[in-house]
Amino acid sequence: MAIIVQKFGGSSVANAECIKRVAKRIGSTYDKGNQVVVVVSAMGDTTDNLIDLAKQVAKNPPKREMDMLLSTGEQQSVALLAMALNDLGYRSVSLTGQQAGILTDPVHSKSKILSIDSTRLEEELSLNRIVIVAGFQGVTEENEITTLGRGGSDTSAVALAAALNADVCEIFTDVDGVYTTDPRIVPKAQKLSAISYDEMLELACLGAAVLHPRSVEIAKEFGVKIHVRSSFNENIGTIVQGVEEMNKIVEKEMVVRGVAYDLNVAKVTLFDVPDIPGSASKLFRALADEKINVDMIIQSQQRDNITDISFTITKDDLEKTKEVLADIKEKIGAREFSYDSDVAKISIVGAGMITNPGVAARMFEALAENNINIEMIATSEIKVSCIIRSELIKKAVVILHEAFELDQPA
Amino acid sequence: MAIIVQKFGGSSVANAECIKRVAKRIGSTYDKGNQVVVVVSAMGDTTDNLIDLAKQVAKNPPKREMDMLLSTGEQQSVALLAMALNDLGYRSVSLTGQQAGILTDPVHSKSKILSIDSTRLEEELSLNRIVIVAGFQGVTEENEITTLGRGGSDTSAVALAAALNADVCEIFTDVDGVYTTDPRIVPKAQKLSAISYDEMLELACLGAAVLHPRSVEIAKEFGVKIHVRSSFNENIGTIVQGVEEMNKIVEKEMVVRGVAYDLNVAKVTLFDVPDIPGSASKLFRALADEKINVDMIIQSQQRDNITDISFTITKDDLEKTKEVLADIKEKIGAREFSYDSDVAKISIVGAGMITNPGVAARMFEALAENNINIEMIATSEIKVSCIIRSELIKKAVVILHEAFELDQPA
Repeated sequence: MAIIVQKFGGSSVANAECIKRVAKRIGSTYDKGNQVVVVVSAMGDTTDNLIDLAKQVAKNPPKREMDMLLSTGEQQSVALLAMALNDLGYRSVSLTGQQAGILTDPVHSKSKILSIDSTRLEEELSLNRIVIVAGFQGVTEENEITTLGRGGSDTSAVALAAALNADVCEIFTDVDGVYTTDPRIVPKAQKLSAISYDEMLELACLGAAVLHPRSVEIAKEFGVKIHVRSSFNENIGTIVQGVEEMNKIVEKEMVVRGVAYDLNVAKVTLFDVPDIPGSASKLFRALADEKINVDMIIQSQQRDNITDISFTITKDDLEKTKEVLADIKEKIGAREFSYDSDVAKISIVGAGMITNPGVAARMFEALAENNINIEMIATSEIKVSCIIRSELIKKAVVILHEAFELDQPA
Repeated sequence: MAIIVQKFGGSSVANAECIKRVAKRIGSTYDKGNQVVVVVSAMGDTTDNLIDLAKQVAKNPPKREMDMLLSTGEQQSVALLAMALNDLGYRSVSLTGQQAGILTDPVHSKSKILSIDSTRLEEELSLNRIVIVAGFQGVTEENEITTLGRGGSDTSAVALAAALNADVCEIFTDVDGVYTTDPRIVPKAQKLSAISYDEMLELACLGAAVLHPRSVEIAKEFGVKIHVRSSFNENIGTIVQGVEEMNKIVEKEMVVRGVAYDLNVAKVTLFDVPDIPGSASKLFRALADEKINVDMIIQSQQRDNITDISFTITKDDLEKTKEVLADIKEKIGAREFSYDSDVAKISIVGAGMITNPGVAARMFEALAENNINIEMIATSEIKVSCIIRSELIKKAVVILHEAFELDQPA
């Protein structure tokens, strides 16, 4: 008997009809002889409506109270889904994060799961019940209700799958799986039948919004097989798994597996920084203290004992970054700084890159042949990212998708 | 420093504006140097909306899941109220029933509070926080979420006041306090400045909907002083307390304290029941097994070894009662039965009655003088109730209110 964890997002349980449809789908998985644990998000707009309400009563609601408030959204959807399953004749029970034993750290609004005590879950499964668990939430050692932040229900599902040693964690979404690139830009984008954790992690971080990076990290750490698939049909989607399992998949060998892009990027450059030990650390410590996430960093070759430092951040953090730089500039003796928010990041991802020299070169050539100037470059074992003008991003995606022959059926 | 428990109902927290207003009121109690614990119900129509949603997904939702669903209503209102208080500069924290240590039995949808572990509550109070507790809910020993049924938030408030040994439990409502009778029928009805637990209990059971009987029972058991007052003004309302304290109140001595009426009554009579031991017990056991609450019972004087048994029930239970009687009639050898739902109950209540002979007689006289026929009579130490034709009920209320001089200012 397989243990299957299924996760349905808010749009899948937006109203009573949707809930009944999801219940049927869950029931059919149970009917095939599986033990089923389901994670659901809050119904449709519930979370947004609750946030609105909070803003009406307080300018700056404490995060602890926001968690108390928002966690009710998932509690409602799990109760309703359990009711719908019972109505169809299935034995089902809903559990809050606390009841499901999901222990988190106390960082309200973006807690991390510390551990899962699966005693209750296993007890319910042994009674042949379908267990519906509230996603996105947990409880601290002090019995305080927490939420996991954006993408939290994906994380709940994968963590539960890990705790239960589940055979697969099915993430239901509104697309058919993970694609070689955004099908809205490249209609010939291909669905990948499988992808490794690392590749998925890079794609997730690069803006492919199918899975939250944190959930992929946990899946990788505990070896949870994820199946990203559509909630609208029965098609097989994309399996996210370890590199070892990847080799078992019969699929055309593709060095580059996907092209990702990100428009939420701004570039900042600090000029004439004295090249003495500690300059960079002072700069990035100051940014970190303001919780500004820095992505790509480039330090130019020093000349005359001074150097330029460029880095990228999300557009949202630009204003805060400017404040930090205005302050730090003199402390580290830099001359001035500039910023540019009309940039975007384009990336190619593929676990095979590391053993295939020339992939980066092919990328730069393809861009150059089409007069797309590269402003910054960053590489990892399985990824090459370039900063280019934002107005050229769609063109670049099409070019690279074709250059690496990603538009051929696998 | 006094400990004050305050309870606000759903209409007091119906929207953001209401929540802010209630927060101000709570803050002013805190500002007077009190430790404050607040119990709130769900916002306005939340509970009804959730019940509607449940009915849309399941014909007969399990009560356990209904409790999971409905308990979110109070969790939302406590979080919002705590936010509003923090916004006003007060330190405040919201707690679910579980977090507040409210342990109940496992009878979902109408659980009873077994005990309250006030450790967390006292800890929060010692940190000078205003503690907002979700009413109407608790948790079982098995960590299952329960709800207390109708009037549950009153019960939560009184039970918390008992556990904390609070100085007073203020129940905020849309009326100014407890009246000698329904002011909609008798405009000259007077607000009582104080009333004993037993009197309040009788009035509550007799349809004066200000307080739920269960909450009065707990208040009596633990000697919790209740203050029923308006949420719209600062007027002193009605104090509900023990008889001992009553004597301290300087108030015109009133033997009869209030006139109550109840239209949700049906009368049933079983004719020619053989007067042998066990007939009555068989009948009322059968009714009890169907969870039919029997109120007044009258067995007529036996003649020729047969007797008639009449009793009253709520109108809602009439259909079920007819089924039980059709079945039991032959088993106990009764001839036939009749029923009548055009009746109503009128009652006078007053702790002083027991020491004042002639009160009942005065009631019967007043009704007789006005041609109101009495069909059944039941008495207790502090109450006399009569069943009369339902169309005469308003007239009877006016007559008795005047007969016992209740329309004079106290």
